[in-house]
Amino acid sequence: MTFASDIEIARAADMKPIGEIAAKLGIPEDALEQFGKSKAKIGADFVAGLKNRPNGKLVLVTAISPTPAGEGKTTTTVGLGDGLNRIGKRAAICLREPSLGPCFGVKGGAAGGGYAQVVPMEDINLHFTGDFHAITAAHNLLSAMIDNHIHWGNGLALDPRRVTWRRVMDMNDRALREIVCALGGVANGFPREGGFDITVASEVMAILCLATDLADLRRRLGNIVVGYTREKQPVTARDLKADGAMTVLLKDAIKPNLVQTLENNPAFIHGGPFANIAHGCNSVMATQTALKLADYVVTEAGFGADLGAEKFFDIKCRKAGLKPDAAVIVATVRALKMHGGVGRDALTQENVAAVTKGLENLGRHLRNVGQFGVPAVVAINRFVTDTDAEVEAIGRYCADYGVVAVPCTHWADGSKGTETLARKVVEIAEAGTAQFRLLYDDSMPLWEKVRTIARTIYGADDVIGDKVVRNHFRQYEDMGYGRLPVCMAKTQYSFSTDPNLKGAPTGHVVPVREVRLAAGAEFLVVVCGEIMTMPGLPRHPSAEIIEMDADGRIQGLF
Amino acid sequence: MTFASDIEIARAADMKPIGEIAAKLGIPEDALEQFGKSKAKIGADFVAGLKNRPNGKLVLVTAISPTPAGEGKTTTTVGLGDGLNRIGKRAAICLREPSLGPCFGVKGGAAGGGYAQVVPMEDINLHFTGDFHAITAAHNLLSAMIDNHIHWGNGLALDPRRVTWRRVMDMNDRALREIVCALGGVANGFPREGGFDITVASEVMAILCLATDLADLRRRLGNIVVGYTREKQPVTARDLKADGAMTVLLKDAIKPNLVQTLENNPAFIHGGPFANIAHGCNSVMATQTALKLADYVVTEAGFGADLGAEKFFDIKCRKAGLKPDAAVIVATVRALKMHGGVGRDALTQENVAAVTKGLENLGRHLRNVGQFGVPAVVAINRFVTDTDAEVEAIGRYCADYGVVAVPCTHWADGSKGTETLARKVVEIAEAGTAQFRLLYDDSMPLWEKVRTIARTIYGADDVIGDKVVRNHFRQYEDMGYGRLPVCMAKTQYSFSTDPNLKGAPTGHVVPVREVRLAAGAEFLVVVCGEIMTMPGLPRHPSAEIIEMDADGRIQGLF
Repeated sequence: MTFASDIEIARAADMKPIGEIAAKLGIPEDALEQFGKSKAKIGADFVAGLKNRPNGKLVLVTAISPTPAGEGKTTTTVGLGDGLNRIGKRAAICLREPSLGPCFGVKGGAAGGGYAQVVPMEDINLHFTGDFHAITAAHNLLSAMIDNHIHWGNGLALDPRRVTWRRVMDMNDRALREIVCALGGVANGFPREGGFDITVASEVMAILCLATDLADLRRRLGNIVVGYTREKQPVTARDLKADGAMTVLLKDAIKPNLVQTLENNPAFIHGGPFANIAHGCNSVMATQTALKLADYVVTEAGFGADLGAEKFFDIKCRKAGLKPDAAVIVATVRALKMHGGVGRDALTQENVAAVTKGLENLGRHLRNVGQFGVPAVVAINRFVTDTDAEVEAIGRYCADYGVVAVPCTHWADGSKGTETLARKVVEIAEAGTAQFRLLYDDSMPLWEKVRTIARTIYGADDVIGDKVVRNHFRQYEDMGYGRLPVCMAKTQYSFSTDPNLKGAPTGHVVPVREVRLAAGAEFLVVVCGEIMTMPGLPRHPSAEIIEMDADGRIQGLF
Repeated sequence: MTFASDIEIARAADMKPIGEIAAKLGIPEDALEQFGKSKAKIGADFVAGLKNRPNGKLVLVTAISPTPAGEGKTTTTVGLGDGLNRIGKRAAICLREPSLGPCFGVKGGAAGGGYAQVVPMEDINLHFTGDFHAITAAHNLLSAMIDNHIHWGNGLALDPRRVTWRRVMDMNDRALREIVCALGGVANGFPREGGFDITVASEVMAILCLATDLADLRRRLGNIVVGYTREKQPVTARDLKADGAMTVLLKDAIKPNLVQTLENNPAFIHGGPFANIAHGCNSVMATQTALKLADYVVTEAGFGADLGAEKFFDIKCRKAGLKPDAAVIVATVRALKMHGGVGRDALTQENVAAVTKGLENLGRHLRNVGQFGVPAVVAINRFVTDTDAEVEAIGRYCADYGVVAVPCTHWADGSKGTETLARKVVEIAEAGTAQFRLLYDDSMPLWEKVRTIARTIYGADDVIGDKVVRNHFRQYEDMGYGRLPVCMAKTQYSFSTDPNLKGAPTGHVVPVREVRLAAGAEFLVVVCGEIMTMPGLPRHPSAEIIEMDADGRIQGLF
């Protein structure tokens, strides 16, 4: 049995003009800013004019804790969107934009797979509509203005040792992680330590994705704390008068992008903050726009439900006033086997016992999502090697939680493979059983917020942190940031902070290493373990084999 | 008397859909890749299909040596294009894309001025169609692959001290000029000195602008020399297998961009290499495409004719096989006065003597252009403060060279102000008097090429360079680069290397400080004096006042 590759399927797509896709959502031609024939941004005036319309149903696609075996969250989001359209619902999906950096590192695009993809795949994976480049420019303009301010006399008395704002590049470049800049004499400024993160880790990315309009964007950009004076007083982007120009650089990037699935259904792909040091969801602007235009909006959040869903609920929904109607938790037999202790080389052999053991992981995610008052369905993203006995084991386990597990074959079959899932999602969403609630109130002390997440979601006994870290929490409260939500930065591979602890560990303790302020994004990043904000390239990066072939087609990118 | 500002005029523009503009040149709708309603890229297949058509007439707009008083080269290029259309010629203009960096430094856009502008001005000055961002990404991918290669074992034995390839950012950021990167331990690579240039100084920019198609682009990218081994053997981008992925990143950037003038005439704006360490002209792709579609193509080259026109002829025309039919040399009464010794505070007072003295500068540029066998016209870009006596002095002086000087008022009047100039240009071009010849043959030794330019164009007695520099010239010849043209990097303010020597100095000597290889761009950069490849921001950058106003319009950018 041979399969067409993702790129072959994507290239064979019968793409419709983007105007036709927009029309499915009632978006008129003159509200579209086209980028070629199959991509468009939605005009700001049109988006603003939707404000008083009712919202459609909001469905979150999340997953069990990821393993190298893969779960297929994006693929399932696309498949469910197509499935909902198939059964007659006006549905749109909302996804994150992929980052350029990883494209040239480890082979693989990020636009779904098989017969559940968004297209034009190559454009989406490369520069797309330029949003990430605009974010990079806005971020680095602020960086330049910081060193420029210091160079010309430092009227704000910013302590060069306490500059926390780094620079960004949409590239995997480990050599830029830690640098000393402004060397070379008087004309080049005051030497200091600095460094680059990848663009998706930029606070500007998180801000763009949480802003509700251009005015909110500017307000948030102005609030960015770039560093501190010797007396530890914060200095903001507004103090540097950088917020206006940054907003100008982002005036188009904030507009949602519209593309289509292989089945010609509307897909918003907009924004892509890191799922560790940021909240890992597509933009509020895209989700809100989609909710005004579609009866069903299917969106995803990064990593497993312990991180992705928790942040989606506690950060994005809290800030944007969104109320999800249902959640889909994606699992694969292969990944459950890995949670049950099977190695990568034995994933294709039937092993019901391992699947059953691994279901502990799914179970905790189910409980967790339930705590937010959001009813769930489990989507089993089927592989050809999965046996019926394995799939049935998942079904039985979920039934004990009162949850249905639906096998899906969208990768091979497109919307035909998610029809049952779609019907189940509609049933739940229209039953109106969702009673969305946040995990903690704004008023809870910051440390308690972390403890609440660790105990309730991670199954930990407690959180620990040394005196310095605990003091930082108090300092941020003293500075007036105590009402912000916390954004947990922890390994995605385990409920604990040890990536090797699969399944559903208990009795562990979550060590908090550091807390970072994202005053513009309006959350505090709580760092538990090593968090990489600038990836490196592997020994043989996929860039080495990427090229245009003689027919002008891209090879090696996917 | 009050004038509308450039931005006010631009906003009041009656822009036509870009499809209508394209139709004027016979470009069908399906060859357009639209970016919104008023910008488009021209599809690669359509461009490739033009190959066997005859060329239109090519007109270069250049200028006297620039002064702080301004000459208006871009404005005159736009005005002449409109003027040619006004008198019934099918004309297109070709300009460079502006860089983002300077927009946020010193106030001022770069899309013409008054009633001779290209629109949409704000888009053109901001991200436009993303070309510069793509160039930045392609450049920095190569940078990342260099350090990654060293990190993973350095199979090519690249000497980290001899890496010549830097990184780029489209931003004025002096703190990045000189850095030490890869600090922070084993995981971050081998520490070494590095730095950033502004994107317009990237060799990738020069390559994109000289490439004749995608295959030529890839060939040139592969030829880039990124550094040397301990044994001084060159290491190329091809050795690092970076050329394929870089080409993929540039697949859209290489397509010419089409916009329009205020009078709805077609304008190609594509590429923008620095005029000092690169050749300072828009892309060959844009110029060649325009020549196939229009009867007249008006283009410009950076700085004064000693640098801009010389490089346009000896680098761009040499490489692309272009044969200019006429040149327009732009002069202003104010700038001539400055060349004649008048300070900035006295420019509005009539001073025929100073104008006459300053005409020496124009005279040498006229002689120089004549040496290339290209017939010239002088365009006097009139200001309201210019007196008739001053303008007449210019006319008399030019008559001695057998050249007509035409007063133009396009800034205030649009094409009405360049009608006479347009008629004169047509007269010259259609007389067929042009006998274009290069200043030197490929086979001339490199040092002789520099000497030829210095003596013939700059009026210098000789060139000098210490033993180290002379050895570098020989080494590049030994390496097989002896047949490349030289790209002079010298102050634009004087024929000499002393920016304060206005007029037409003689008897000076040109000291060559350094020679740099641009193996992909296929020229050698000969550095004569301080050349800044990463600008800084001023004490009060215009970024501080740039913002979106309540009506969603950009303020402070222009």
